[in-house]
Amino acid sequence: MKNLKLVNRIDDNGAKRKTEIKIGNITVGKDFLVIAGPCSVESEEQIMTIAKAVKSSGANMLRGGAYKPRTSPYSFQGLGRVGLQYLSKAGLETGLPIITEVVDTRDVYLISEYTDVLQIGARNMQNFSLLVEVGKVRKPVLLKRGMNATIEEWLNCAEYILNAGNPNVILCERGIRTHETYTRNTLDLSAVAAAKGLTHLPVVVDPSHATGRIDLIHPMTLSSIMAGCDGLEIEVHSSPNDALSDNDQQLTPSQFNSLMKDIKETLAFRENIIGIDK
Amino acid sequence: MKNLKLVNRIDDNGAKRKTEIKIGNITVGKDFLVIAGPCSVESEEQIMTIAKAVKSSGANMLRGGAYKPRTSPYSFQGLGRVGLQYLSKAGLETGLPIITEVVDTRDVYLISEYTDVLQIGARNMQNFSLLVEVGKVRKPVLLKRGMNATIEEWLNCAEYILNAGNPNVILCERGIRTHETYTRNTLDLSAVAAAKGLTHLPVVVDPSHATGRIDLIHPMTLSSIMAGCDGLEIEVHSSPNDALSDNDQQLTPSQFNSLMKDIKETLAFRENIIGIDK
Amino acid sequence: MKNLKLVNRIDDNGAKRKTEIKIGNITVGKDFLVIAGPCSVESEEQIMTIAKAVKSSGANMLRGGAYKPRTSPYSFQGLGRVGLQYLSKAGLETGLPIITEVVDTRDVYLISEYTDVLQIGARNMQNFSLLVEVGKVRKPVLLKRGMNATIEEWLNCAEYILNAGNPNVILCERGIRTHETYTRNTLDLSAVAAAKGLTHLPVVVDPSHATGRIDLIHPMTLSSIMAGCDGLEIEVHSSPNDALSDNDQQLTPSQFNSLMKDIKETLAFRENIIGIDK
Amino acid sequence: MKNLKLVNRIDDNGAKRKTEIKIGNITVGKDFLVIAGPCSVESEEQIMTIAKAVKSSGANMLRGGAYKPRTSPYSFQGLGRVGLQYLSKAGLETGLPIITEVVDTRDVYLISEYTDVLQIGARNMQNFSLLVEVGKVRKPVLLKRGMNATIEEWLNCAEYILNAGNPNVILCERGIRTHETYTRNTLDLSAVAAAKGLTHLPVVVDPSHATGRIDLIHPMTLSSIMAGCDGLEIEVHSSPNDALSDNDQQLTPSQFNSLMKDIKETLAFRENIIGIDK
Repeated sequence: MKNLKLVNRIDDNGAKRKTEIKIGNITVGKDFLVIAGPCSVESEEQIMTIAKAVKSSGANMLRGGAYKPRTSPYSFQGLGRVGLQYLSKAGLETGLPIITEVVDTRDVYLISEYTDVLQIGARNMQNFSLLVEVGKVRKPVLLKRGMNATIEEWLNCAEYILNAGNPNVILCERGIRTHETYTRNTLDLSAVAAAKGLTHLPVVVDPSHATGRIDLIHPMTLSSIMAGCDGLEIEVHSSPNDALSDNDQQLTPSQFNSLMKDIKETLAFRENIIGIDK
Repeated sequence: MKNLKLVNRIDDNGAKRKTEIKIGNITVGKDFLVIAGPCSVESEEQIMTIAKAVKSSGANMLRGGAYKPRTSPYSFQGLGRVGLQYLSKAGLETGLPIITEVVDTRDVYLISEYTDVLQIGARNMQNFSLLVEVGKVRKPVLLKRGMNATIEEWLNCAEYILNAGNPNVILCERGIRTHETYTRNTLDLSAVAAAKGLTHLPVVVDPSHATGRIDLIHPMTLSSIMAGCDGLEIEVHSSPNDALSDNDQQLTPSQFNSLMKDIKETLAFRENIIGIDK
Repeated sequence: MKNLKLVNRIDDNGAKRKTEIKIGNITVGKDFLVIAGPCSVESEEQIMTIAKAVKSSGANMLRGGAYKPRTSPYSFQGLGRVGLQYLSKAGLETGLPIITEVVDTRDVYLISEYTDVLQIGARNMQNFSLLVEVGKVRKPVLLKRGMNATIEEWLNCAEYILNAGNPNVILCERGIRTHETYTRNTLDLSAVAAAKGLTHLPVVVDPSHATGRIDLIHPMTLSSIMAGCDGLEIEVHSSPNDALSDNDQQLTPSQFNSLMKDIKETLAFRENIIGIDK
Repeated sequence: MKNLKLVNRIDDNGAKRKTEIKIGNITVGKDFLVIAGPCSVESEEQIMTIAKAVKSSGANMLRGGAYKPRTSPYSFQGLGRVGLQYLSKAGLETGLPIITEVVDTRDVYLISEYTDVLQIGARNMQNFSLLVEVGKVRKPVLLKRGMNATIEEWLNCAEYILNAGNPNVILCERGIRTHETYTRNTLDLSAVAAAKGLTHLPVVVDPSHATGRIDLIHPMTLSSIMAGCDGLEIEVHSSPNDALSDNDQQLTPSQFNSLMKDIKETLAFRENIIGIDK
């Protein structure tokens, strides 16, 4: 793929590059990243409860949406700034670094004050103004692949961020839209293995949005690890049925705890396997 | 489709609604709209030459991109503010109202100063912050359907704009991304006929981006008219081979002039046909 | 497109070719073809009633399925040979040539005894054994594009039939499967205009399967004509709500009669338009 | 999913079913199936060499195409009956059961004489006549998912075979067609995990056709195992660059040998993991 001079795995001298990003006391690209938390921050108590639960199970980053991109203007749009404050408080209390989505160029600086990592959602992957804006701040960026994006377009979007000055980009595969309707989207694990070969940036997987089904998150998580991913982003809610968004795909803390055990075992197993581009 | 209370064709009393939007001396939704012009504004001379040509052939609105969303950060990104000034000058000189794309919430007010219509591109269809922002200004908005969007998602995005206070939205079908690679995208004319039935907003078609092929623009334009569209957006460049973007799909002024003759005849013919939701 | 030596519009000497196929007293490729009739032959009375109705409205070929490819083995599978007999009788009574689908290589000779045209359905487009088999008989073949096929794959399938010895192939666009769920499939009219340019074979459109919605058949039919098609295949049933298959997309004889009036006017209008590859 | 009474995992009494199929000295659904071999049988020597190689690496079934469904009529179409004879000889010599594709209802009995398992290819998934025909013989059937098929349509095709009398069906996911062009198809591993939950039939994965890229076969194979699959089908050729079909996706015997080591380790590891529906 041409025109990817900054994200290309191979530098101008033909050497392989690898990006490692220090965030709190973890190093993404070296330590396996497990981002967990609710789709949306709904209240101080909700995010605090979930933060403690996912921390105790072994997650090393906390997610929670404060500015939500929703299909309908009449759906819950997130708590905004107050949501950021709750999320920040939960991060401080548990010692977990936090990640939240930014949807507007005007919010980048404000959100950067609160969060450790800025998330660009699938619908904004080609919001090039936003890419340039997050390219100007010092916070790492998690860039989700658009539902409709080719791998090449996705990497070009990362190139926008690096080209604007921010080298700390984490790629995230979250499923593409296909003809299949049984799953919310189609998780494209070949794209994970392909991206690992094409770029030096860490690549994580979001099996929650990719499948949209509780029963598929467990096998797809373990599959993702064997595809070579550097981390996961998983939705966890203390009471999924009452959630204000994404009811069908959020694990309970107990389900997440079981999953974490298998994640750890699979990671330990993967260490001994050659043939995966870790 | 639920939750579309503002864009729904039928109002709460069961009556059919129809939106007409006065722009300069045309009324979109009543007069047939023909937007023509280059993909990008490249120079004062370029846009002026093209403006005069399309005006003389019968176009009634001038397009030209100043802020270009491009896949690669290393592609031509548009002339920005100076491009707006050239476009504005060409509009004044020819008497044509102008339309240009806005890609950033922070630019909405600036661009509104120059342009008659704000265009939201396919990649930003679900940039909800931008939808709300263009919903707050008094300029009409042309909302392109995302390459990957369902008709329902597209109408929900229009609902965002109306809900934010701006009733003057024009929908634009510009092709969806499918497995077919012979054409740039797949023009979905059923979506045009469907949208005409579902909403009171005017619906226009962009056969240039939909097909990406000069040889298909002519038949697809006439097909679009018979699908019931309220207008067209067609790329015209005085020297397509030298264009800084979209070389393969811009008509020459002479090709556009021939096409306009057939557009007019087909419109006149359509007047007498029942069974199309005009 | 390479390897299309027989279906290519241009012959080895650089001359444009055009296929005309005499069937009964019409010449496909010259006379506009209007195939009408029910999805399935259900009884002698049903097919006779519909045949008379569509004939009187101006259809010039009768369709009716006797061997039905159905998603579930528990759905109505067609009347088989007795269905062929009813269809044949209705054809003789009305003077309309008939077309029916063949789904098995072993049935090709039998069905050829009854029918004037053999239809290859979308699901069998790449059933290469069947293509070769219909390539060996003397009856014209209508080849539907697969829901998932590229234009190039579709033309290669026609090449199979011509290469097996049968030059009389009619192509039929019937919609492709995309992410859109509002319509049954997405009618790809660009493919019609493209195919007209790429091959000398006649191209017809099936707006019934493409849209799956009564309200969209009328506009899509007229759009198809302006895209340059050589004919149409439209489902008509005397009592669509009671039909054993495809209830949502069959027109009543009265709806078909109205549509035929607009088809005739649009065809007359198209004669005078240049720029469409008729 | 309704109408799947025979393939449904749960029987009428609410009990979970599981199909095990004895083929030679392996039991599919219990023993992990590894089908390996070339895309096409090209000569006696070629298939014999490859058969011995894959056997020594641990494959337990031999594949080889004799009747090839090819996009163009001018591509290599397979050796036909003589190919079956070579394949059969290689199977006898190595003790490996063999599998080969059947593309025509008329060939089902002949091919059943030679082969241990009948393969239905992706393009014929909805060739319902062929499904019924292989439903009448006593040989197990491997049913590939169509490139464009939903999980529900795929399971309905298995229902056709069981309903015709043959209970021994193995499902095979081989990638679906999406907008992504970097890979040949998009491997849908969620469909594997989903199918395991929905039906009692064994489910295998073909990472060769799914990815079309040598470099992705290794990670996707291990991912597939963790998605819960019951086996794999992998293309191996002694000289991939000289192969008459599928040059880009066939492993060398040496690459396959390395892969088999990781397959075995991953299977052993999977035994200890709960949360995958094996």
